Amino acid sequence: MADALDPVLNDIDRDLDNSLERLFAWLRIPSISTDSAYAGHCREAARWLEGNLTALGFETSVEETSLHPVVLAHRPKPGAPHVLFYGHYDVQPVDPLDLWTTPPFEPRIDETGDSKKIVARGASDDKGQVMTFVEACRAHLAMNGDLPVGVTILIEGAEENGSQGLPEWVEANRERLKADVALVCDTGMWDRETPQITTSLRGLAYYEIKVTCADRDLHSGFFGGAAANPIHVLSRIIADLHDADGRVTLPGFYDGVREPPPELLEQWRSLGLTPEKFLGPIGLKQPAGERGRLPIELIQSRPACDVNGIIGGYTGEGTKTVIASQASAKVSFRLVDDQDPDQLSRTFEAFVRERVPADCSVEVICYKGSRAVALPYDMPQLAAAQAALAAEWGREAVAVGAGGSIPIVGDFKRLLGLDTLLIGFGLDDDRIHSPNEKYELTSFHKGTRSWARILSALAAA
Amino acid sequence: MADALDPVLNDIDRDLDNSLERLFAWLRIPSISTDSAYAGHCREAARWLEGNLTALGFETSVEETSLHPVVLAHRPKPGAPHVLFYGHYDVQPVDPLDLWTTPPFEPRIDETGDSKKIVARGASDDKGQVMTFVEACRAHLAMNGDLPVGVTILIEGAEENGSQGLPEWVEANRERLKADVALVCDTGMWDRETPQITTSLRGLAYYEIKVTCADRDLHSGFFGGAAANPIHVLSRIIADLHDADGRVTLPGFYDGVREPPPELLEQWRSLGLTPEKFLGPIGLKQPAGERGRLPIELIQSRPACDVNGIIGGYTGEGTKTVIASQASAKVSFRLVDDQDPDQLSRTFEAFVRERVPADCSVEVICYKGSRAVALPYDMPQLAAAQAALAAEWGREAVAVGAGGSIPIVGDFKRLLGLDTLLIGFGLDDDRIHSPNEKYELTSFHKGTRSWARILSALAAA
Repeated sequence: MADALDPVLNDIDRDLDNSLERLFAWLRIPSISTDSAYAGHCREAARWLEGNLTALGFETSVEETSLHPVVLAHRPKPGAPHVLFYGHYDVQPVDPLDLWTTPPFEPRIDETGDSKKIVARGASDDKGQVMTFVEACRAHLAMNGDLPVGVTILIEGAEENGSQGLPEWVEANRERLKADVALVCDTGMWDRETPQITTSLRGLAYYEIKVTCADRDLHSGFFGGAAANPIHVLSRIIADLHDADGRVTLPGFYDGVREPPPELLEQWRSLGLTPEKFLGPIGLKQPAGERGRLPIELIQSRPACDVNGIIGGYTGEGTKTVIASQASAKVSFRLVDDQDPDQLSRTFEAFVRERVPADCSVEVICYKGSRAVALPYDMPQLAAAQAALAAEWGREAVAVGAGGSIPIVGDFKRLLGLDTLLIGFGLDDDRIHSPNEKYELTSFHKGTRSWARILSALAAA
Repeated sequence: MADALDPVLNDIDRDLDNSLERLFAWLRIPSISTDSAYAGHCREAARWLEGNLTALGFETSVEETSLHPVVLAHRPKPGAPHVLFYGHYDVQPVDPLDLWTTPPFEPRIDETGDSKKIVARGASDDKGQVMTFVEACRAHLAMNGDLPVGVTILIEGAEENGSQGLPEWVEANRERLKADVALVCDTGMWDRETPQITTSLRGLAYYEIKVTCADRDLHSGFFGGAAANPIHVLSRIIADLHDADGRVTLPGFYDGVREPPPELLEQWRSLGLTPEKFLGPIGLKQPAGERGRLPIELIQSRPACDVNGIIGGYTGEGTKTVIASQASAKVSFRLVDDQDPDQLSRTFEAFVRERVPADCSVEVICYKGSRAVALPYDMPQLAAAQAALAAEWGREAVAVGAGGSIPIVGDFKRLLGLDTLLIGFGLDDDRIHSPNEKYELTSFHKGTRSWARILSALAAA
């Protein structure tokens, strides 16, 4: 007998304020994964979720990885399909802190503007999104005493730090992660009214370069014009990474990159997403990457290189006539199709080293890399989820690729043989990774309802 | 009747410990001029010197400028030559603080190694150097009740911040600064045993560039490859500033730059200062500037461009997939001969602006600039000072140009018609502008004796 859905949806509506209270409690824990000073808080965030899921009736545990622990929760349902839901409890750093209107770990509802918003670090990425699934499970369990499908929930704590330790943990725990399909809630809507299923993701390779020239900071009056300057060396490397047409110049970089098929290009063109429409909301007008391509094409089907941070020399107020001893930059690549992050690491390091003067030195740190992934278009769970989303939102769900990386999706395919449905309710203006991150109250509420519907739909798929 | 010199030198030897105590008291005041948080401390440092000079018998006052105040002290001597001594009480910022072995404003004598050193921010640049002159005056006054020449002392508080406010103050106080020659103690020795008179100085032009692209920080997964990245824009600007031969590419940059005469080049070659000898002590081997020129030539007779600082995006531990909204760099130029800083400002700003995408913006801040200056080789005071230095050090004083800038020297010539003798006792390894700045105890002691001799010699010049 199929569980009834309407009581579940009604319960979600009725219990919204309590759902928010639960989310707020989780958001108050500053679980920043990239800064070791916050390691204890990451552990607290894991424990909070363990407590929550245990109370709902999941068999839950907090398990160690080489970095922050994962939360694993099971609720099997013999004879029914089984889903593996993934999300992360860790959040991005909050700097620059002075640009936050209110403290990042004091969540609040912002009622200014034309919609209510949950404002906090992690509100959208990813605690708010994770709780849409958890609250959908809660409502099913409250109304029907059971879930429509078997569910395993895996919530990690190092997604913003390259999912360090997670692939090894997944590989060692394959038997406990068996499922028919994986679900991830860490992506966005097409727009405020239109749901979206993300069917492909770019991969990521992330490096840090530290160039050292003289063995101490120098006075630029005494040495300027004669001594090597690491900021010059670094700037040359960065400038050399792109040619005048915006293409990445690393040898072999575009190996394994396929041109999108003409029909897909046509579909993208028909969306009417001009550079002005795409970039206007962030104060820009012209695409900065490869010339002659649409913004959506650049983001969904083309690789990219961005310097995510740079520092060297005197950066305080006023002037200092110094030649720094050291300068460093963080450089990342978005990968598509068959680009190989390991091959890229070798090419990139060689590219950097050949641009460093013989009497200077460079350290190239390689953080975790991941390949791009894509979903088979004919999987039955995709159709089921699309129907469920259409029922909730009154619009067809758009199926598109995304520019960001969720490394675990490639690992699920490789290690568990699982395809992943990427369904999320974030909006482009959520300011994830920026000050004043927010999640629309509508995203949270209708996102929870969406998962309730999807769980029911997957039972029949 | 000429004052006796030997008792003065003996008094300097005898009172060395007390001289050091006085210097230490001044060094304890953190008079960082480029950071407005230290403005009060700058004022304290001025007051301390006012007290000291008043006690010695100078008519002393602290006078306002548009930034930090100057200290002005007079002791006229009718019928005798009159000198104007200049120095600065302000010091460089201390970052990176964690590289200091002991706190920068807790001066101490370091007896490790083969010489005793005064270690503190400002020990060499410029409080230690200023006090060599003040202590020489003290000894003359103590032993003879008078100075050999009339003396005006002008100590400013914004030298490390482009001498902001000083030229205007000098111009408004011309009558009070009348003298026959200016003396500056803010330069170095040729080497540990050989005194030096600096006969030319490079000029300085200092800028800050702030590039803004999107109106907020972006997620590099969503926008990477489509949105402009200010670090890329900035790196391109910096990389474009030099060509492959190390020459500055700004249009007209080398206008007004003269090639050194062959006899000077020959003299430089005879010094045997190879790239290895010049750069070895700072851990480098090959000159980084214009190809095919000696290091001493690059530093004394050629202009240069250095980026003194750069910052943008995420610079903390680990990774953050962000495209920054803004990135900034501090860029300075060393000028020679007839290069015009005002013309350079126009060229530089145009060069920067044409490299910023149309939908991004840039702010170019111009800090104070100064032209290069050079001394007439036949001035009688130069010969007198050379003889006095030779008597103290047992070696002829080398007369050379220097790479650094002391903007006031150009202003003294322009506003007061004064030529300046640049005599200092710093060493190349004093780490001025770096952590663990030091001043050799020998520099302080024999420097004081040198000024005592020079004051006597100038009375006869």
